[in-house]
Formats: sequence, C-alpha cells, structure tokens
Amino acid sequence: MQIAVVGGGNCSPEVRAQARRLGRLLAEEGHVVLCGGLGGVMEAVCCGAKEAGGLTVGILPGEKEGANRYVGIAIATGMGHARNVIIVKSADAVIALPGEHGTLSEIALALKMGKPVISLGSWDIPGTIKAEMPDEALELLDLQVSQRRSWRDRKDNRS
Amino acid sequence: MQIAVVGGGNCSPEVRAQARRLGRLLAEEGHVVLCGGLGGVMEAVCCGAKEAGGLTVGILPGEKEGANRYVGIAIATGMGHARNVIIVKSADAVIALPGEHGTLSEIALALKMGKPVISLGSWDIPGTIKAEMPDEALELLDLQVSQRRSWRDRKDNRS
Amino acid sequence: MQIAVVGGGNCSPEVRAQARRLGRLLAEEGHVVLCGGLGGVMEAVCCGAKEAGGLTVGILPGEKEGANRYVGIAIATGMGHARNVIIVKSADAVIALPGEHGTLSEIALALKMGKPVISLGSWDIPGTIKAEMPDEALELLDLQVSQRRSWRDRKDNRS
Amino acid sequence: MQIAVVGGGNCSPEVRAQARRLGRLLAEEGHVVLCGGLGGVMEAVCCGAKEAGGLTVGILPGEKEGANRYVGIAIATGMGHARNVIIVKSADAVIALPGEHGTLSEIALALKMGKPVISLGSWDIPGTIKAEMPDEALELLDLQVSQRRSWRDRKDNRS
Repeated sequence: MQIAVVGGGNCSPEVRAQARRLGRLLAEEGHVVLCGGLGGVMEAVCCGAKEAGGLTVGILPGEKEGANRYVGIAIATGMGHARNVIIVKSADAVIALPGEHGTLSEIALALKMGKPVISLGSWDIPGTIKAEMPDEALELLDLQVSQRRSWRDRKDNRS
Repeated sequence: MQIAVVGGGNCSPEVRAQARRLGRLLAEEGHVVLCGGLGGVMEAVCCGAKEAGGLTVGILPGEKEGANRYVGIAIATGMGHARNVIIVKSADAVIALPGEHGTLSEIALALKMGKPVISLGSWDIPGTIKAEMPDEALELLDLQVSQRRSWRDRKDNRS
Repeated sequence: MQIAVVGGGNCSPEVRAQARRLGRLLAEEGHVVLCGGLGGVMEAVCCGAKEAGGLTVGILPGEKEGANRYVGIAIATGMGHARNVIIVKSADAVIALPGEHGTLSEIALALKMGKPVISLGSWDIPGTIKAEMPDEALELLDLQVSQRRSWRDRKDNRS
Repeated sequence: MQIAVVGGGNCSPEVRAQARRLGRLLAEEGHVVLCGGLGGVMEAVCCGAKEAGGLTVGILPGEKEGANRYVGIAIATGMGHARNVIIVKSADAVIALPGEHGTLSEIALALKMGKPVISLGSWDIPGTIKAEMPDEALELLDLQVSQRRSWRDRKDNRS
C-alpha cells in the first residue's frame, strides 16, 4: 500500500526517532512511504524506510531540489500547500505525527476524503485513531485496512 | 479587502441566517466576499452580500456551472479540495462558520499562512479568534486588520 | 461572460495597445476580464478594461501582492504554472495575444477543454480562430458564443 | 533520472509499439518513467518499463483507481489538467509522442520551465528536439543532459 506519513518540518529528537522507526516498519511490510519530502518528520520517516530498503516518495511544495536526501522519487508540484491534498489523496491511509497547522490541514483533508488517519501523538481531532508507539500505529493501520476491506466485500456480496 | 467566509456545504437554518447577515455586513463595508461557491454557508453568505449590492467570488472545486446563483465571479479550478488553498490564500482574513473537515482544513491552512481567522461558532483551534455573532466577527476583523497594519508600520519605521 | 485574455508578460508597444483596446471593448460589452494578473498583455488588458469601468480578475501564480495595479479581484493561487489551467477553465472563451510558451500552454489547455480560442496574432495552432484586430476578435467571440449556444439549444430540443 | 513520457490517451498500434520500446530503453538505463498514468501512450510506456524491471510513476488527473495496470506508484492529484504541470515539473527531461492538445500543453509547459523536450513524432514546436525512433530519442536525451550539465559546470567554475 501507499502510506502517507505527515508531521512537522521541525521535530524533537523523540519524534524523529519515532518517525524513523515508523519508516522502517512500513518498509519492512512492503509499503511505499509517501510524504511531503522536506525535513523533520518527513526526512526521518524516509531515512527509516530507506534503511530498510523501502521506496520513498516526496511530494514537494516546490522544486525537486528541495527533497531530503532519503527521498527516492521526487514529485515537484510547485503548488505550495496544495501539495498537501496530493499527499493525502494518493495514500491508502495516513499516519500523523506531531506537527503544526500544515499537519492539521492534512489530517482534516484525509478525514474529508474518508481515509483512515492514525494519530501518533498528533492533533486530537474526532475521527482519528490514536496510537502511542510506531508499532501500535502499524497494527492499527493493518486492522483499519482489513476492516474496511471486509466491509467493502460484504457490501459487494450483498449487491 | 477580500474576506473569505468558509463553512459547511450543508447547514442549519440558524447558521444560514448568520452567514447571510455576515454577507450583508461585509458587503456594506465594501469588502469582496470569497467562498467555495457551493451551497450551505457559501450560498447564504453570497446571498447576503448580493442583497447588499456586494461582489461575491466563488472558487469552485469543479466547473463554473456548480456555482450557487449568488456567485458573481465564478473561478472554476477543477482541482477539488486543493481549491481550499486558493480561497484562503486569496483572502486578507478568514471568517469560519460551522462546518466539517473541509472547513477545518481551511482554518488550518489559513493559520499556516499567518492569516487572521475568526471562528464564528466553528472549530476551536488554538490561534483562531472567537466571535459569537456576525456583528462581533466584523468588529474583530477590523480590529485584527488594523492591529496587523500598525504592527507592520511600526516595524517598517524601525527598519 | 467571463473572457480570458492571455499573452506575454512582456510585450511590444503595439501588442500593449491592442491588449488595452481589447480590454476596453470587453468591458464596454459587459464582460468580466480574466487574466494571469501580471505585466505585459495582462496589465494592458486590465488597464483598458478598468478605463471602461469594467471588472478585472487576476489569477496569480503566487501572492496577491504580485498583481498589476489594474487588477480588481486578485486570486492568489500559489500554484505557479498550474494557475494557467484555472484561468482557462474559468473562461467562457479565450483571446490569445502574442506570448511565449506559457501562452501556448493556455491555448492548448483551452482547446483541450473545448473552449473557443481566438488568436489575435498569437500561436497558430489548428483549432484556434484568427483575428487581425481587437474589434474583429470581439466580433468573432460573439459569433462563436452564439453559434455554440444555438447548437446546444438544437441538441437540447432534439433530446 | 526521472523522465516524463507524454502522449495521447489513445494511440495507433505503431505509436504504442514505440512507447513500449521507449519504456524498455528508459528502464534499462535505470531511469524512472513518469507519465499521466492513463491509457494509450501512458500505458504502453509503463508496460515497456515494467517489462524491463523499471519503476513507473503515474501522476493521475483523478483517483488512484484510474491508473493503468503497469503504474508502480500512483500519485492521485484530483486536479484534472493541472496534473500536467506536475508531470513536467517533476521530470529532468520530457519525451513527447503523438498526442492532442493535452500533449501540446505539456510540451509548452516543459519549454516554459526550460526542460529538454524531445519530440518523437509529436508536435513540431520551436525549441523541441526531433527524434525519429525511440533509440534516437534516448541518445538525444543523454546528449542533452550531459551538455546541460557541462554547461552548468563551466558556469559554476567561472563564478
């Protein structure tokens, strides 16, 4: 799956460690990591994913040259904050780490689009699913996706 | 000034009445009303502004034909939720009425861009300024804008 | 109607005079002028429209502050070249003056969307309608729009 | 490098064969293939690249579900034609095959952004470089990129 990881462009060492661990776990499960391609949480999650041999996609507000060094595929939108919409829309699910209003906009857009949003210490908005640790975030992610699939399958069988 | 009014595409009669009153007040002060161009709060605020002889701009997610009948200038973006970014970015200030996650995304984007956001019964996000009634929202709007101007002037004088 | 006028950000005095005359004519017929909001052809057409008391909308690649002084409503997209799509998509018809590759992209997008495109000394792309002078461009515009309307009416009557 | 291949959503068997061969060649040289993710030329180039074990990115106008089956990474923009800007902006160079006005818009945008554009039987716009066959397109691509690099290096050394 394509999993978006969103969070601050600046972050504490603790959040950075969590993002990196999350990147590793996602890559080990074979997921593609989508993010905004810049620093902080975005860089850490790409770093972790790359260490585990995973594929990372940075969807940038500006030019390709702005991508952090762990971005594998750089999508240069030149569209500023509107790239937040693309990150979320391209994702099967979103994991949000601590961040400011940009992160909040991504959580809001994901909920608007009906995507599962796991909040790993991020904004507490109704509709998000809370996780304490990266490993728990991944378990919740798998659970969410399988639940939505089985719900969809049941709906398909009925019709 | 160009003032964005954001809020739900569906709304209660009370919110509709507030949005319409707000539209009137904005138009009477000579402001251009920007909004998403669809129904609910967007339609009511355009209706009020038009009744007062004001200019209304609908920045639409899809085609021009989707605009409510009180939209004067229809900007057809064809960009879905990314049009939220344009509404907010084109505004000198944002007034938010009750709405769901789309409205939340606009509040978040406006705060991210450093624009004044007045919450008239909308999401309670740190950084927004609360108003109870349309008239109060307008007073707060004028206050905000004049404060930011005088702050900017002082800064310019110092440098 | 909302008529987009596209063309170079830099232009010769002759083209500038044509754009200004075109703006006047459009405003006198009651059309809203849409453009990219910057200099050259965009500034001249806004200038002409404003002189005739018309309404001008600048759909900008960046910030509102980048608008030329004849722009009435400034739409700040922050989306760079992607704003070309919005200019064209918001227009009932497009009039193209001389310009470079940005202008060509707008002509191509307009033709892709099935909009009438009148080329007033601009790129010679199959599907555009050639005009020699601003007055002729306006006549062709009226003709195009009325033809398309009657074609649509006939189609509606048949179905 | 990230190479965008653009062309019609419908195409002749000959063009399809060329696009597929081009995809293979690009993948064999280790390039990532960017495209619009839909049918015709876009599907054929992805097919060829995938057959050669390459990585393909589809930058879609709508939802992820619209991607052809050879797309590896699906970027869902929901932005319609504005996604053309992202395809081109994310590319180090563009190879254009036959297509209609959408393809023309991508060529124009690429030239506007100063990217090398190789026209493999596509629109004949000043500034594009003509190729007759996929193998020639790839040679021209390598030549263009190395020339631009050495030009940039010389400029850097001078300054």
